[in-house]
Amino acid sequence: MQHVDTLIVHAHALTMRGDGVGYIGDGAVAIQGGRIAAVGATAELSARFSASERIDATGHAMLPGFINAHLHSPVNVIRGVAQDVDHWLEKAYWIFYKYVDDADALARSRFTLLEGIKSGITTFLDHVAPFPGWPQAYAAAGVRGRLAASISALGMDAKLDGLYPLDPRAGRDIDEAVAFAREWNGAAEGRISVLLGPVAPDIVLREHLLEIKRAADREGLMIHMHVAQGDREIAQMLARYGKRTPEYLDELGYLDEQLMAVHLTEATQEEVQLMARRGVRMMLCSSAIGLIDGIVPPALAFKEAGGMVALGSDNSACSMFNEMRLTALFNKIARRDPKVMPPWEVLRMATIESARAIGLGDQIGSLDVGKQADLILIDLRGPSLSPVLDTPVRNIVPNLVYNARGTEVKTVIVAGRTVMRDGEVLTMDERAVLEEAQAAADAIARHVASDPDRDALALVSATRSGKL
Amino acid sequence: MQHVDTLIVHAHALTMRGDGVGYIGDGAVAIQGGRIAAVGATAELSARFSASERIDATGHAMLPGFINAHLHSPVNVIRGVAQDVDHWLEKAYWIFYKYVDDADALARSRFTLLEGIKSGITTFLDHVAPFPGWPQAYAAAGVRGRLAASISALGMDAKLDGLYPLDPRAGRDIDEAVAFAREWNGAAEGRISVLLGPVAPDIVLREHLLEIKRAADREGLMIHMHVAQGDREIAQMLARYGKRTPEYLDELGYLDEQLMAVHLTEATQEEVQLMARRGVRMMLCSSAIGLIDGIVPPALAFKEAGGMVALGSDNSACSMFNEMRLTALFNKIARRDPKVMPPWEVLRMATIESARAIGLGDQIGSLDVGKQADLILIDLRGPSLSPVLDTPVRNIVPNLVYNARGTEVKTVIVAGRTVMRDGEVLTMDERAVLEEAQAAADAIARHVASDPDRDALALVSATRSGKL
Repeated sequence: MQHVDTLIVHAHALTMRGDGVGYIGDGAVAIQGGRIAAVGATAELSARFSASERIDATGHAMLPGFINAHLHSPVNVIRGVAQDVDHWLEKAYWIFYKYVDDADALARSRFTLLEGIKSGITTFLDHVAPFPGWPQAYAAAGVRGRLAASISALGMDAKLDGLYPLDPRAGRDIDEAVAFAREWNGAAEGRISVLLGPVAPDIVLREHLLEIKRAADREGLMIHMHVAQGDREIAQMLARYGKRTPEYLDELGYLDEQLMAVHLTEATQEEVQLMARRGVRMMLCSSAIGLIDGIVPPALAFKEAGGMVALGSDNSACSMFNEMRLTALFNKIARRDPKVMPPWEVLRMATIESARAIGLGDQIGSLDVGKQADLILIDLRGPSLSPVLDTPVRNIVPNLVYNARGTEVKTVIVAGRTVMRDGEVLTMDERAVLEEAQAAADAIARHVASDPDRDALALVSATRSGKL
Repeated sequence: MQHVDTLIVHAHALTMRGDGVGYIGDGAVAIQGGRIAAVGATAELSARFSASERIDATGHAMLPGFINAHLHSPVNVIRGVAQDVDHWLEKAYWIFYKYVDDADALARSRFTLLEGIKSGITTFLDHVAPFPGWPQAYAAAGVRGRLAASISALGMDAKLDGLYPLDPRAGRDIDEAVAFAREWNGAAEGRISVLLGPVAPDIVLREHLLEIKRAADREGLMIHMHVAQGDREIAQMLARYGKRTPEYLDELGYLDEQLMAVHLTEATQEEVQLMARRGVRMMLCSSAIGLIDGIVPPALAFKEAGGMVALGSDNSACSMFNEMRLTALFNKIARRDPKVMPPWEVLRMATIESARAIGLGDQIGSLDVGKQADLILIDLRGPSLSPVLDTPVRNIVPNLVYNARGTEVKTVIVAGRTVMRDGEVLTMDERAVLEEAQAAADAIARHVASDPDRDALALVSATRSGKL
């Protein structure tokens, strides 16, 4: 009998192997040295393995940890202040965003990690300008960070009308991002990896995009960038280069498997097909784009064209349950077809398909022997996910997608280490994290409250008039 | 100093008074004899009242309890087995539904009440054929039941193709519903009230609809009915009567303030305007209709025409957080306009507007002196609802709508009595309720598993092939 670190037994295992959800009834996983040593039926693995820790997962679903393929961790603390308006960025968000600086970025970022861990996210693709303590926050939280070091030539004091003033000194950001990648790629026992994150083609100079592409090739890094994210971007591209974004990026040699394109809100059917065919990966942020634009991005078309799609929460609730549900429902509505985006597809887009899309398909995203032991246990016995039916229709996955609150996640394990147990995060002082985030958000709000531009905000009027 | 039963202090009070959310910072409510005795600032009420129980609601939002304006409580246990297909009713749901009988209806209904209470619902408009123990379940759970006794002429063994065979003996249901109303209207200290609930105009005979209308007038009851709920219904109406549903109902004298019309999925712009103008109330079930039809019902048009809209969960997760979020986002997408259905409007549609729509506007739906003390406390201090910002933009209501999980509801009070405290339901044995619901659902699933028609179900194939 072989000895392993951990044996989890009696779970409804959703391994995400094969082309469905890879269900194993009364399933088990053996973990050794932070990796998955075996996956199978409880009877089989109990016979093969003794374990230092044995976890009884009766009544729980066991899944690979969720992957959040696009977020900006330090700005999530200002949720709820910029939506329900036209031109949310210029007319609602920017005034808050310009007061978001490095001072307490760490506190704000930790807040987002806490929220994510509590809903079962084990890998975060975080798109941010590197700030002191950023990778260390991931190392300390015990989760997996895929860190996209952002590069932008747009100053915080810029006016967002007319052609944006782009600062050629942004080239320094490229050098810093490359240095950051060399320092941190593979750190924290491999839990941290780095990407290059030009913010968007309309706010990075053409010569810098070319330099970023060369650096990415040289350093073996992927590129994570907002692409065709709004009519504002398309208008800038047409005014500056006479081309829409995808054609411009194609000319620059960007449309290949190295590129993760975030949003694609404004991409046409032809542009979607071109990008999917070239192997570009799409990051779909259903909740964010639905909320701020009232738009369903063309993820279905991207998949139909053979492309890979991963889900991200962007600035919304850091919960893949929210993204899975909204992705399924929004696309049914956009197509007026209840058959599209069934629950098994959206679950794959938050696990195995996402892992492949962000370039970690060999490491995470499914419960497979040799992969990292990133997995979560979800209690199915409460009123939101029960009754559990196995036959003739197994309702576990539909209920996870359509009915879960997110708080049913009880255990989170990353690289074999328990990060959350019984709903309590072990790697963070939850109360301190929340208090620091509140203080940080208060500071930002105070700045905005004394900014004369605040009076033009629709939500300031709504607050004053008692609507909020 | 006046003595009251309960004084709740230091809350972010969302009273829902006025035309917004009626916010009071550091707000308080005094409760006496099951009703609201005073609403105001904590300093003011603390000076006026002593109390047998004083509840410190620091860090919590205090709202009127949510109203779920349309559900079928005993069938919610079979969630997750019938969606992601065309013609969900005939091709997925019916085979389960036909094995749903009275035997364990009570266990199944209690399950739904438990789920609803835990997410802050204090009033349930439950549309069901009366079964033994139904009103008693509401009385025992301590919540408010607005019970729509259903009337249908369609047998459980009916084939759903061609003209439905309608059973003239359904007239007995009318007599039974009226007898039920006479027995239960006003029971449980007024927490129970009764409506007449013809299931839908295509499955109730014309003469019975006329009889129901006469009975409703005579008995002073409102009528709750699915209307224009699908192309299947419209096709039946055209084939049987040569008219679409709204015109037919108009001819029968149904379009007035007595009617609550559920869904209106297929109603045209003109039909919506006609019904809204006549004072018909619309029940909007965003999650159910989005899921099964991929459709956003015309609630915006109904409101624009001056009609009242209330939110219901139907067969979906019994959570008004889910309905509020989906209603806001779906309508933004349907109009491609982020401004429509802002959070204060959807919160009103789950509280005060819903109360008015279901005919209880003078009793519930807002924190107002003299109204029933139905209220909930929501902990804002966790990662999903914090940081809380008060100025210059108050983010509490947007975060409740866009980010809440539902499990942040900690305290539920109905008619002054605490039904849930610290997240634990006091009026039910939670574990027993869940176990009984599981047993009931298992029994239904066993019947379906041995029904030869199961092989035609798409989700049975999906289960067998490993997709589910």
